[in-house]
Amino acid sequence: MSKAIVLLSGGLDSTTTLAIAQRDGHEVHAMTFRYGQRHEIEVDAARRVATAAGVRDHVVVDIDLRTFGGSALTSDVPVPKDRHVDANRHGIPVTYVPARNTIFLSYGLAWAEVHGATEIYAGVNAVDYAGYPDCRPEYIAAYQRMADLATRAGIEGRGPQIKTPLITMSKADIIKLGASLGVDYALTTSCYEPTVHGVACGHCDSCHLRLKGFAEAGLKDPIRYREPKQ
Amino acid sequence: MSKAIVLLSGGLDSTTTLAIAQRDGHEVHAMTFRYGQRHEIEVDAARRVATAAGVRDHVVVDIDLRTFGGSALTSDVPVPKDRHVDANRHGIPVTYVPARNTIFLSYGLAWAEVHGATEIYAGVNAVDYAGYPDCRPEYIAAYQRMADLATRAGIEGRGPQIKTPLITMSKADIIKLGASLGVDYALTTSCYEPTVHGVACGHCDSCHLRLKGFAEAGLKDPIRYREPKQ
Repeated sequence: MSKAIVLLSGGLDSTTTLAIAQRDGHEVHAMTFRYGQRHEIEVDAARRVATAAGVRDHVVVDIDLRTFGGSALTSDVPVPKDRHVDANRHGIPVTYVPARNTIFLSYGLAWAEVHGATEIYAGVNAVDYAGYPDCRPEYIAAYQRMADLATRAGIEGRGPQIKTPLITMSKADIIKLGASLGVDYALTTSCYEPTVHGVACGHCDSCHLRLKGFAEAGLKDPIRYREPKQ
Repeated sequence: MSKAIVLLSGGLDSTTTLAIAQRDGHEVHAMTFRYGQRHEIEVDAARRVATAAGVRDHVVVDIDLRTFGGSALTSDVPVPKDRHVDANRHGIPVTYVPARNTIFLSYGLAWAEVHGATEIYAGVNAVDYAGYPDCRPEYIAAYQRMADLATRAGIEGRGPQIKTPLITMSKADIIKLGASLGVDYALTTSCYEPTVHGVACGHCDSCHLRLKGFAEAGLKDPIRYREPKQ
């Protein structure tokens, strides 16, 4: 049984990605990052998801991204509400975290090498996160070429394969696929500003995307909202 | 004055690299990683070097690479003594840490984005560390192509430039260059197993490389050794 690292945030996309990695026949080593994000409640969600999925192991890695500032998710910039995109002149959302995916994938690469994992799954999506430079297919392709040289396996020119099965999928299609694979979305969290009990706000960009996805998929979102928009 | 991130371990190579970045006219933001290496005394050396060089700022980032194991520098594998190379079947030294340079450069990339730095200097060397996949020029080139897509600047296809001025230089040439730039090598540390007071062993691979470099450069190494080999 080949091994795969899955980057697991506890959100909808990464939870679906984990189910895909298992469907593909891999033994899953899940990896979650605690990086000073306001929605640390995600880490708890990731633990629930990992346990429910019966992964081989699950590591939570501490990363102090607050050191770097520059994002509404890790500093005091307000998280935008009721606006689908709050972008700067380049169309990059304020919730973008500098080099986040590069750092996360790099930890995944290290862990893949230690475990001898042949793939790294990441729930990167270029549709919902169109403004994020590190969610684009060309970025992932360039990361792959770097990863092919970066590790012991790279001496022979082949690194673990970076799998981003959701990268061009709509949220509705992701939810439909996950539902068909038996994903329990009640375990997941998406809200940027949940209550301390994990109840979603229903207003932030991430809640909007999620609710719209469930609506378009013709399914009911099983999580609780402070002010349901369904 | 353009800004540069310098990855600073407190060793001979990165200290020389810092001096080169300043010679090149950059305002330096130094970045040091505390990653569970046995020779944590390096972090203190990095602080001394950063202060002496008058850098703009200096951040020490905690990375728990022990989570990943797999290296003599971060786990209980013995550090080889009095052998220039202790390699596995691929010629990779046991002191290789999985994906270390990829993780370090990725933090550098994040910090470069926050500060608007146009370059990232790293003291990577492909001569002394010939067995390390992530010290090869082709790896650095692939990292550059990834970095060109990874950040806000990457939307326009240009990221910070990764500078590895020492990559093909011998240790002797590095020391001669550093000396000509006024580097005080007494502030640096190289030993894998120094005493608690920072006195070098004189026997490990790193001490051998350093002592050989000073000898070939015709200079005296100003640091203290338990058993001088000079």
